[in-house]
Amino acid sequence: MKTIYILNGPNLNMLGKREPGIYGQAGLDKIAADCRALAAELGVEIEFRQSNHEGDLVDWIHEAGEKAAGVVINAGAYTHTSIALHDAIRAVAPLPVMEVHLSNIHAREQFRHKSMIAPAALGMICGLGADSYLLALRALAARV
Amino acid sequence: MKTIYILNGPNLNMLGKREPGIYGQAGLDKIAADCRALAAELGVEIEFRQSNHEGDLVDWIHEAGEKAAGVVINAGAYTHTSIALHDAIRAVAPLPVMEVHLSNIHAREQFRHKSMIAPAALGMICGLGADSYLLALRALAARV
Amino acid sequence: MKTIYILNGPNLNMLGKREPGIYGQAGLDKIAADCRALAAELGVEIEFRQSNHEGDLVDWIHEAGEKAAGVVINAGAYTHTSIALHDAIRAVAPLPVMEVHLSNIHAREQFRHKSMIAPAALGMICGLGADSYLLALRALAARV
Amino acid sequence: MKTIYILNGPNLNMLGKREPGIYGQAGLDKIAADCRALAAELGVEIEFRQSNHEGDLVDWIHEAGEKAAGVVINAGAYTHTSIALHDAIRAVAPLPVMEVHLSNIHAREQFRHKSMIAPAALGMICGLGADSYLLALRALAARV
Amino acid sequence: MKTIYILNGPNLNMLGKREPGIYGQAGLDKIAADCRALAAELGVEIEFRQSNHEGDLVDWIHEAGEKAAGVVINAGAYTHTSIALHDAIRAVAPLPVMEVHLSNIHAREQFRHKSMIAPAALGMICGLGADSYLLALRALAARV
Amino acid sequence: MKTIYILNGPNLNMLGKREPGIYGQAGLDKIAADCRALAAELGVEIEFRQSNHEGDLVDWIHEAGEKAAGVVINAGAYTHTSIALHDAIRAVAPLPVMEVHLSNIHAREQFRHKSMIAPAALGMICGLGADSYLLALRALAARV
Amino acid sequence: MKTIYILNGPNLNMLGKREPGIYGQAGLDKIAADCRALAAELGVEIEFRQSNHEGDLVDWIHEAGEKAAGVVINAGAYTHTSIALHDAIRAVAPLPVMEVHLSNIHAREQFRHKSMIAPAALGMICGLGADSYLLALRALAARV
Amino acid sequence: MKTIYILNGPNLNMLGKREPGIYGQAGLDKIAADCRALAAELGVEIEFRQSNHEGDLVDWIHEAGEKAAGVVINAGAYTHTSIALHDAIRAVAPLPVMEVHLSNIHAREQFRHKSMIAPAALGMICGLGADSYLLALRALAARV
Amino acid sequence: MKTIYILNGPNLNMLGKREPGIYGQAGLDKIAADCRALAAELGVEIEFRQSNHEGDLVDWIHEAGEKAAGVVINAGAYTHTSIALHDAIRAVAPLPVMEVHLSNIHAREQFRHKSMIAPAALGMICGLGADSYLLALRALAARV
Amino acid sequence: MKTIYILNGPNLNMLGKREPGIYGQAGLDKIAADCRALAAELGVEIEFRQSNHEGDLVDWIHEAGEKAAGVVINAGAYTHTSIALHDAIRAVAPLPVMEVHLSNIHAREQFRHKSMIAPAALGMICGLGADSYLLALRALAARV
Amino acid sequence: MKTIYILNGPNLNMLGKREPGIYGQAGLDKIAADCRALAAELGVEIEFRQSNHEGDLVDWIHEAGEKAAGVVINAGAYTHTSIALHDAIRAVAPLPVMEVHLSNIHAREQFRHKSMIAPAALGMICGLGADSYLLALRALAARV
Amino acid sequence: MKTIYILNGPNLNMLGKREPGIYGQAGLDKIAADCRALAAELGVEIEFRQSNHEGDLVDWIHEAGEKAAGVVINAGAYTHTSIALHDAIRAVAPLPVMEVHLSNIHAREQFRHKSMIAPAALGMICGLGADSYLLALRALAARV
Repeated sequence: MKTIYILNGPNLNMLGKREPGIYGQAGLDKIAADCRALAAELGVEIEFRQSNHEGDLVDWIHEAGEKAAGVVINAGAYTHTSIALHDAIRAVAPLPVMEVHLSNIHAREQFRHKSMIAPAALGMICGLGADSYLLALRALAARV
Repeated sequence: MKTIYILNGPNLNMLGKREPGIYGQAGLDKIAADCRALAAELGVEIEFRQSNHEGDLVDWIHEAGEKAAGVVINAGAYTHTSIALHDAIRAVAPLPVMEVHLSNIHAREQFRHKSMIAPAALGMICGLGADSYLLALRALAARV
Repeated sequence: MKTIYILNGPNLNMLGKREPGIYGQAGLDKIAADCRALAAELGVEIEFRQSNHEGDLVDWIHEAGEKAAGVVINAGAYTHTSIALHDAIRAVAPLPVMEVHLSNIHAREQFRHKSMIAPAALGMICGLGADSYLLALRALAARV
Repeated sequence: MKTIYILNGPNLNMLGKREPGIYGQAGLDKIAADCRALAAELGVEIEFRQSNHEGDLVDWIHEAGEKAAGVVINAGAYTHTSIALHDAIRAVAPLPVMEVHLSNIHAREQFRHKSMIAPAALGMICGLGADSYLLALRALAARV
Repeated sequence: MKTIYILNGPNLNMLGKREPGIYGQAGLDKIAADCRALAAELGVEIEFRQSNHEGDLVDWIHEAGEKAAGVVINAGAYTHTSIALHDAIRAVAPLPVMEVHLSNIHAREQFRHKSMIAPAALGMICGLGADSYLLALRALAARV
Repeated sequence: MKTIYILNGPNLNMLGKREPGIYGQAGLDKIAADCRALAAELGVEIEFRQSNHEGDLVDWIHEAGEKAAGVVINAGAYTHTSIALHDAIRAVAPLPVMEVHLSNIHAREQFRHKSMIAPAALGMICGLGADSYLLALRALAARV
Repeated sequence: MKTIYILNGPNLNMLGKREPGIYGQAGLDKIAADCRALAAELGVEIEFRQSNHEGDLVDWIHEAGEKAAGVVINAGAYTHTSIALHDAIRAVAPLPVMEVHLSNIHAREQFRHKSMIAPAALGMICGLGADSYLLALRALAARV
Repeated sequence: MKTIYILNGPNLNMLGKREPGIYGQAGLDKIAADCRALAAELGVEIEFRQSNHEGDLVDWIHEAGEKAAGVVINAGAYTHTSIALHDAIRAVAPLPVMEVHLSNIHAREQFRHKSMIAPAALGMICGLGADSYLLALRALAARV
Repeated sequence: MKTIYILNGPNLNMLGKREPGIYGQAGLDKIAADCRALAAELGVEIEFRQSNHEGDLVDWIHEAGEKAAGVVINAGAYTHTSIALHDAIRAVAPLPVMEVHLSNIHAREQFRHKSMIAPAALGMICGLGADSYLLALRALAARV
Repeated sequence: MKTIYILNGPNLNMLGKREPGIYGQAGLDKIAADCRALAAELGVEIEFRQSNHEGDLVDWIHEAGEKAAGVVINAGAYTHTSIALHDAIRAVAPLPVMEVHLSNIHAREQFRHKSMIAPAALGMICGLGADSYLLALRALAARV
Repeated sequence: MKTIYILNGPNLNMLGKREPGIYGQAGLDKIAADCRALAAELGVEIEFRQSNHEGDLVDWIHEAGEKAAGVVINAGAYTHTSIALHDAIRAVAPLPVMEVHLSNIHAREQFRHKSMIAPAALGMICGLGADSYLLALRALAARV
Repeated sequence: MKTIYILNGPNLNMLGKREPGIYGQAGLDKIAADCRALAAELGVEIEFRQSNHEGDLVDWIHEAGEKAAGVVINAGAYTHTSIALHDAIRAVAPLPVMEVHLSNIHAREQFRHKSMIAPAALGMICGLGADSYLLALRALAARV
């Protein structure tokens, strides 16, 4: 069975506790569970991880280049600053990488409008809460 | 049955003929047909339209405010310049409006990176070709 | 009797329904009625129109250049993007054109701070709701 | 009887002498007289002052917060640079403050396009010469 | 015989009436007549149109993609703001499209210096009044 | 006994009345009293003043250069615009000058993020309400 | 007894060795000792840490959200680039977080003038060397 | 017989050798020959020169002010940086000067989009290869 | 005898005490004395003043418009921020006003490079210490 | 024997696999081997490391400050964003640090043109592939 | 006798012919003659030159470093673009170099506001026509 | 034997005399001699030239395109402004051209940070004084 990596960046471990007005009340565990349920239905496996370290995310994308058929990444705040993640995604090309965000990043502070990783990714889904993950998973599953 | 408006902006009538390297070979009719098929499966109706006139898109969003349960919009080039569409979306709030793009707008020319309508929309899906429409339709159908 | 054109741009047909916290609860009909009442008192006629099409507004300004003694224009979102309207106003010079806005555009989003038509207009009145129209009408009536 | 403060900033004491091509030939005394005449008609009193000192204008706005029902302010050059006046207007909220300008500031040098006080004011009237003051007075009188 | 579309954007219908110091005294009819005369000499046909609607210009470029051997376009104010026209020109590639302007747009206001359509066009001719059209027609005729 | 000047800029006389959501309910008198109490404890004298005139603040800094052992300054809105205050602080070097703000200026409007006087001051304390003053006083007292 | 976390970012372990003209000769141990002494006096405990890894600082802020009554943070160079730290501080709200700097960051290179974490923090103290820490500790102790 | 100067700036001597994908395979000699042939047909003489020295181009424009009836200039890279050429063209006003470019400068690197000489010239023709010269020659010949 | 006003802005009263490395060791009294000596030689009178208040400088320029044949102004820090002084100079046109600076403002901090009053003045002399005043006086005396 | 640290940042472990069109086909091991061979010839030792963690690079520069005679650093994507690395290099001054890049960073995307560490380094060598490392090693060996 | 070089840049040879509304009717010969007369009075010699070549001006500044006691330079258009001249002036330090301009460069087009050579020069005199040269000569003569 | 051109731009003839704190005490002759010595060792010939004229450098690059196997260029101040040199390097492609600088241009004034020629060159070496030339020579010799 094909594996899809679902990678989460800084502060996403605080989901449910952090600014529920913006991010909703469900924690990251709930999203992982929802993803696992959908993956089962779609016939793929998922590897679900979170780290607050930019270097970990780079390492995991490299690892995915070896072991995965696709990546869903919510890079959190590193979305807006990390050229290293941009390069990591290009380094594993043509592995398909979907960028996701829980909130609509374009409707928030100016410094969240720009994504450094978007030009390297296959596409972006944002603003749909946990559904952003599920739709990205569905899009990748249809491609692998 | 609930209706979802799927609105297409300038030059999308040229799909299939226009820069197939970027936009793919399938025409807009094929996307409409795919959307209709999925809509049937999801139990919703769709109203699928295209215009090269900014004013038509504004009119249709207003109309959707009366008749629709949600809107999927690919505003084409007006995405990057139209405050009128931004205001139209806000004028029909809380009607959920999903912005979609066939290509990954962040990986193209600088002037396509900014969306004027994104801050008014529920969210954005881009980079997945016709799948951008289908996933947006799915997201809206789950909400209505 | 002299005629003054009162032209309204995109989304103003949604007045009363659209973001009443910003634009108030009265619809465009109420403003038209108030303008007609004041016009009668001032001894002028008014021609009151609305369109979501930039091209219609350009056409109407040209028409006003033939038939009107002055123009009150609330160009809505086109205020901030339309060089075509700027040129249309200059094309009918020296016809006096007053720019009006219901809300105080300087107290809203950054992209509403700049008016492309202001440098071509006689002046601007904003922030006074329907009174913006009435004062502009009064100013023009005093000039014709 | 209600009192409305009409405050004038730097160089407005030179009116009539200064660049008559832009500001017209009538002096500030003439504007004061016109305002007094209209005030009598509207049943309000006015307090008409001018100073070249930014601090005086701040002081007077504070005083208006105690004694006035509204303020008409032509802050002259301080319009474009004074955060202190912006704060002063907010400090006396919800006292209605109308910003006025004799000329159309948007049709002049780039550095006159931006008003620092506009976001704190109720609204702006510009480009109508002395009529800018009279219409603002009328707008405030209708509110008090 | 080959046909060349000559398309004119907003406010060009006012030519001759509008700011004759910049645009000259001859109306658009005179330019059309001059173009027809030259076309006859060059052995091509022309289709000469004008609209104030951005969407019409987009429609006509698409139509030219079917029926014409080349396009001369003076997009007027839309030159500086329309990504939709940029995309329309690219959508009909490799149809040769020449951008023309009556005045030297680089010698006017800052906001007229940038052309959004120039990067999509074959080339630009500006500053020569009606001759800009005639030379563009000659250049296209030599290519078809 | 050493004296420390505590200088307050525009609109701080409105403290307690002005936007209590941002600045708190205590007036400037209360802050002066708290400073006096702490000064007594620390064995220094204070000279506490407020003015809405930029020139007064410049004069007082010069005076402090003669008579004081340090300055605490909350320059209010002049913080963001006054090169004159910047120069005044440098003119009395090496007199230690601490910049203070009641609110966290970095969490407010963009135009309050930059301090023109900060590069000339010893340091800055902000965001702690009246405690900003007290801590600055403590820091200076420890140095004199 | 309440605990206050004192967190130090990149290169602060080099204190005393690194550019003593800017940062002084005392090492980080000395600052830790001074903080411990003051904490004892104020009746609070402190947890004093340093890391060159952005992810560690994010982790520790999350930990403080569970275990601490407040945080003093000198994020070093990450101050100017880290949206992740900004988000971490907001994720543990309403825990009070004070930003400190040894030097006056506004008097140094341009790229040190902007703090990404300031808008999320309670306030900032800078320019006072080790006293910046001590005053922040005092401010927090007074609040817990 | 009237003389028209055709001046060529830096690197145009490399034409045919330099980046033929952009500039075509014909050398500058071929363009000179084509211009001479057309000039004979139009009844004018031409003086055709090239230099890599900005100062030579300035000298030659001055000379043209004495001896020529018009100038066609392809200033090459100096187009984008030379205020000296801008001033030289204004110094010989009202001598008509046409700016030409082989390639469409707006479709290339950002730093080639702006022409420093355009605001001083009569007009610009670009994107038509050697035809840019021929059309400019024709336009000038029609004027002299 | 003709009178020339020599006006000095903020912090110039500190001359000799303030940053002697930049401004020299001589006080403002010495410059006044040197100006008086040269004025006697040139057959003009001078009126020499200093203020830290922007409003005073505006008042004095107005006064000079009535009583003086020319103005030498060193506006100090207000040079870089005051539109009010710009307007005051234009309000007394065609009175010749020379801007002077002791130091070379272009060789100092970025924020001192731009003069708001320069576009309104006759010319500028800077970088020559007290000689800047003397040369300006000489230039004006030659004109009156 | 003197030791020179050769430090490699994010994604350089992917060398040979990653975008070989830009970075060449040789892996990092090959570069390490080449460096070792040259070091032997030059009579120095090298310590060759790679990490995807910004914090590791900071740690290693500190370590080099204790143990090395020089540093060659290819900071990869952190080159363009890391003030922490800039500070680390300054913290170990006067240890000579040479910045290297395999590709010519100035010929790639805009966001790779600026190096945050360059102002702190001794110099930069780029564009020569593995030779960039070897020449830097040679330059440092000549200095130690 | 000491010699002062007076160097003139591009287009100044056109003085008297070029835009007399801005530069006056007197040619460069007249300025040279006036300078020679004043030099005789001041007891210095002058060397007066003009070139349209940036390289000549650089050469001459170097030559002045050997043979002259000071330089007056009107670099014309190169003022705004030439770092080479900036470096040349610094290369002959501490030779005093005065920058002069006939017109007030701050009152003209935006691209003439910035002088690249000003930060390297002793000072600037502008706006006084030929008097700018004479005053600069006087200032230098007093120093040599 | 292969020849490598070593080209030096403006002010480099002043080396040794000019700002020795930045550029060192050795003159350009010493660098030429060092280069000749290394060239002999590497078995290549060198042609070493200097000019203050941009046009000469363009000419010489063209000449190198005919006669040389590579170019080392220190374009001095023209580095930062010359598109003509950029184009000249591209015109002789694929001739390898190495950009060198004596000082670390990234550690100096802002206007020296950007190189216009870097995107056209093979690579850059800076900050190593005369060694920058020697290493570049070595890199080219290894390629020819």
